[in-house]
Amino acid sequence: MQVEDFRWKKGMNAGELGKAMGSIGFQGAELGRATENFVKMKKSGAKIFLTFTSNMATSGLRGFFAQLVELGMADFIVTTVGGIEEDIIKALGEKFSLGKFHPDDIQLHEQGVNRVGNIYIRNESYAKFEEFIQPLLHKMYEKKKQWSGTELMDELGKTVKDKNSFMHQAAKKKVPVFCPGITDGALGFQLFMFQQEHKDFIVDIVKDFETITFATSHDDKKGIIALGGGISKHFAIFTTLLNGGMDYAVYMTTSRETSGSASGATTDEGKSWGKVKDDSDAVTVVGDVTITFPIAMIPALEQLSKEKVI
Amino acid sequence: MQVEDFRWKKGMNAGELGKAMGSIGFQGAELGRATENFVKMKKSGAKIFLTFTSNMATSGLRGFFAQLVELGMADFIVTTVGGIEEDIIKALGEKFSLGKFHPDDIQLHEQGVNRVGNIYIRNESYAKFEEFIQPLLHKMYEKKKQWSGTELMDELGKTVKDKNSFMHQAAKKKVPVFCPGITDGALGFQLFMFQQEHKDFIVDIVKDFETITFATSHDDKKGIIALGGGISKHFAIFTTLLNGGMDYAVYMTTSRETSGSASGATTDEGKSWGKVKDDSDAVTVVGDVTITFPIAMIPALEQLSKEKVI
Amino acid sequence: MQVEDFRWKKGMNAGELGKAMGSIGFQGAELGRATENFVKMKKSGAKIFLTFTSNMATSGLRGFFAQLVELGMADFIVTTVGGIEEDIIKALGEKFSLGKFHPDDIQLHEQGVNRVGNIYIRNESYAKFEEFIQPLLHKMYEKKKQWSGTELMDELGKTVKDKNSFMHQAAKKKVPVFCPGITDGALGFQLFMFQQEHKDFIVDIVKDFETITFATSHDDKKGIIALGGGISKHFAIFTTLLNGGMDYAVYMTTSRETSGSASGATTDEGKSWGKVKDDSDAVTVVGDVTITFPIAMIPALEQLSKEKVI
Amino acid sequence: MQVEDFRWKKGMNAGELGKAMGSIGFQGAELGRATENFVKMKKSGAKIFLTFTSNMATSGLRGFFAQLVELGMADFIVTTVGGIEEDIIKALGEKFSLGKFHPDDIQLHEQGVNRVGNIYIRNESYAKFEEFIQPLLHKMYEKKKQWSGTELMDELGKTVKDKNSFMHQAAKKKVPVFCPGITDGALGFQLFMFQQEHKDFIVDIVKDFETITFATSHDDKKGIIALGGGISKHFAIFTTLLNGGMDYAVYMTTSRETSGSASGATTDEGKSWGKVKDDSDAVTVVGDVTITFPIAMIPALEQLSKEKVI
Repeated sequence: MQVEDFRWKKGMNAGELGKAMGSIGFQGAELGRATENFVKMKKSGAKIFLTFTSNMATSGLRGFFAQLVELGMADFIVTTVGGIEEDIIKALGEKFSLGKFHPDDIQLHEQGVNRVGNIYIRNESYAKFEEFIQPLLHKMYEKKKQWSGTELMDELGKTVKDKNSFMHQAAKKKVPVFCPGITDGALGFQLFMFQQEHKDFIVDIVKDFETITFATSHDDKKGIIALGGGISKHFAIFTTLLNGGMDYAVYMTTSRETSGSASGATTDEGKSWGKVKDDSDAVTVVGDVTITFPIAMIPALEQLSKEKVI
Repeated sequence: MQVEDFRWKKGMNAGELGKAMGSIGFQGAELGRATENFVKMKKSGAKIFLTFTSNMATSGLRGFFAQLVELGMADFIVTTVGGIEEDIIKALGEKFSLGKFHPDDIQLHEQGVNRVGNIYIRNESYAKFEEFIQPLLHKMYEKKKQWSGTELMDELGKTVKDKNSFMHQAAKKKVPVFCPGITDGALGFQLFMFQQEHKDFIVDIVKDFETITFATSHDDKKGIIALGGGISKHFAIFTTLLNGGMDYAVYMTTSRETSGSASGATTDEGKSWGKVKDDSDAVTVVGDVTITFPIAMIPALEQLSKEKVI
Repeated sequence: MQVEDFRWKKGMNAGELGKAMGSIGFQGAELGRATENFVKMKKSGAKIFLTFTSNMATSGLRGFFAQLVELGMADFIVTTVGGIEEDIIKALGEKFSLGKFHPDDIQLHEQGVNRVGNIYIRNESYAKFEEFIQPLLHKMYEKKKQWSGTELMDELGKTVKDKNSFMHQAAKKKVPVFCPGITDGALGFQLFMFQQEHKDFIVDIVKDFETITFATSHDDKKGIIALGGGISKHFAIFTTLLNGGMDYAVYMTTSRETSGSASGATTDEGKSWGKVKDDSDAVTVVGDVTITFPIAMIPALEQLSKEKVI
Repeated sequence: MQVEDFRWKKGMNAGELGKAMGSIGFQGAELGRATENFVKMKKSGAKIFLTFTSNMATSGLRGFFAQLVELGMADFIVTTVGGIEEDIIKALGEKFSLGKFHPDDIQLHEQGVNRVGNIYIRNESYAKFEEFIQPLLHKMYEKKKQWSGTELMDELGKTVKDKNSFMHQAAKKKVPVFCPGITDGALGFQLFMFQQEHKDFIVDIVKDFETITFATSHDDKKGIIALGGGISKHFAIFTTLLNGGMDYAVYMTTSRETSGSASGATTDEGKSWGKVKDDSDAVTVVGDVTITFPIAMIPALEQLSKEKVI
């Protein structure tokens, strides 16, 4: 395949742009490979694991994740608790604002504003989450005492109505949401508070391990779209390893492989473990996912839609 | 403070080198600030949270973590499950080897070798872990049915004898080890296997939230040494936020703040949340922790040792 | 401004996508600011400096640079010699191919293939450059003995006919091309070879300093689009500093500010020097330029075209 | 080679620390390989090219570079003009101060302070350079009209007396200093000013290409220590390619290979070009050079000194 000179065409569509990037070279070319991989993954009938870090749900990608669930582009979601909280918070009508990466953080703190990169969230938004969650936990407790993490996620998703909420769409489409570090955020605090009064209320996270592991079989084709690193990415690839590893893998991250972290680990490293199959279609794209993911996914959606796959 | 020209002195000691780096500028200067912060943190009597990602325990830093626990430089450890597994595996006598970042990963896979950056681990090493853990879970089950994560960690640590094992040293020194994503690795699989036969065996991770939150009070001075990002870092800073935030904070990471991730979040971002106090001593050092952490910590240890603090 | 949930619309155009990214947050938001900056820069009548590193001309961005010159979006180009060579090589009909980041480099070397990231260039392509340049230098020598770098660039550009060549378009549109490190590549070798036989042939690079410095005045509005770092970026901002600094600045780079390099230096650092005016519109976008630049520039082109500015 | 658990030993020396890092893994291991490479390079009698970006001379590494020249660890220096200016400025008695990465840059500008990462330089320091350079150019002009870049560097170095100045030490030890982008900074402005009055004053940079190319032969062993990227790194490896490429290569950088830049290009990429020989000893260490370079070089100096090589 050759490097092709890129030119803007007036009114060109986003799918065309994404495709053209595939011939520019460097990360543009890897992005083009990601697009192809998304198409193949879906057309092969693979079960798709969509994993992302909390900050991505804080960003406007949240609506895109919801849409992908709607479109059947994700069969399982794995994320961290912050992302779940912020999805719910927005579903409750709260808005986050765009700010700066280097503001006066002490002043923000005095104003009751919390910063996530260049996104600002008011204390009030978290208070809303608190008001929402306690009654829900009560209702759940009345039903039964012991819940798996995935069941808890499902309850959360069912309770909100917002087409841009991935939790809502996941509940609607029966897409399990896994959150392997379920206490690492405000939800953890709320669960702890609730447990103070209800000692027999248990969240059984070992159960989730079983659920995700048996969600696919050795015979299923499996694909992963891992956005960012951390526990979301690792949990999906580790548990799938037990079922023979991924047939399709797209990792999109800003982390480097040079420090040996799971976050920066490439699909090649995954092959040494069998997390990614030796003969898989696999690609690693380096860059900020708020930019790389839409531009890589849109041409795939255009093509799949044209071919009536989605 | 001025930039000072650096010169090698024959036989100079490591503490001297670390101190001198503090006047070179760029990350060297931030590293110098980290050293000062470590000293102040310890001398103030702060409760120290040492957090690190799994890959660091895979590396030879593991022995240094163990030593820091011995020396009283860590009151709490937060890490991910991979790091715990690999600490135990080494305590069982297994060795990891140094390899390359870009080997033939398919060949490695065929040889039963798993790659973590440029470190290679044989399948046999994980098999050893498996042999070790099942009898232990049986013994634990005989004692009681419901365990918190921290209690499980303590049992693991007590069972091995290796001065370079941070799990061993933590158990010995009664330093709690928190692992907020306890199922995200081989341990998760072992717990699941065990639970198949012992349905009433429960790991209660909400309990850990309580333990870490009540481990320190508003009145305690608190410090964090966060190596790498992810759930280990976030869990320590989030739970401490509930107690008024950190008085001392050193973040050492390769992640960038530009993507809004918790891993790349600076101590400044932490201030907007109150995770790091407005008037705290706080510093972020960018670089590979296998290099930056020893060189920043050693001058602190030399000074604290000279002043008979450790 | 608020974070907006992103959703794909079937057939959405690239301009729409770019605009939507501006409300996603993180680098997407910075990219949106870059788009606005491009529009303002052009509409204000600013003189625009487009700077890029050699590897970008190696990539398919070359055609886009050529198009931007055609459209009047660049009044001056600053780049390194490798980019000029590769632009000419492609104008001579050579093709580069898309490869891998981690091939067997020794094998590539044996096959006469040179790698630039994931782009492969055959030795023959450089041989073509050699055949092209020597006759040109002879013709130039017949005209005069002492040339400025910019004059040499102009001769190079005039000699090729390729609409996707930025050197061709620059010569056609009388856009000066500056190359402050003119000997750092094959051209340096060719100049040296020629000078062996023609001792009085001189390339006067101090003259270029004069040319770029007097190309704009204190009174002119000035803008910079700096893609990547290094000498191209620094030369444009340093020389413009002498004329009061930039009114508009967009830096797009993968470099970090943490190491104090000019490549990673942000527009904020530029303000301390007066390279970027205190009240300028300035933005730094972190990411691979093969992806970020088209997606940021296209919405600007769509808008400017609609408003008949270009 | 095995991963070894790292432990601090009270009073351990810096050489010991560096060696121990080599067994930690990740970049620590690559750093250990760099140390071995430095030793082999020197003991083989290779001609050593030391290249660095301007910001490193701004930092306190400047004194270390000077010392390495004194010790015979560098036969050629390649750098950018900013580094030369700042070395001279410090040799004239000016001091730079340590500041912050995110200060109020507009305020700094108003105070006449220029920022390079976390290093601050006062306007007065540059004024000193100006006062110094014009009389020197006059003296040079009286000697002859046409100078190569290297000759100009030599004159600069001879004029200052400061053991921590690499320019001073290079002049003293007859180590040529190459600056392929000689006009990209204050020196460019001073040359331009001088040329206004002295039209026949010429700096012939093509001559430097000849000098560096003939400085070593195919038969010489050649080594490179490339700190940071950009034109300094590329000029040394490109010109040496013409003589058969490097036998030893250590690249230390914060740049990533993923964007295809010369700055991030690894020693592997260098092999595809023949810039680095197929059977060379070559290593790339990722990290901030203010930290990685001293800690990698010191154990090499200790060993070479013990073996009486230096």
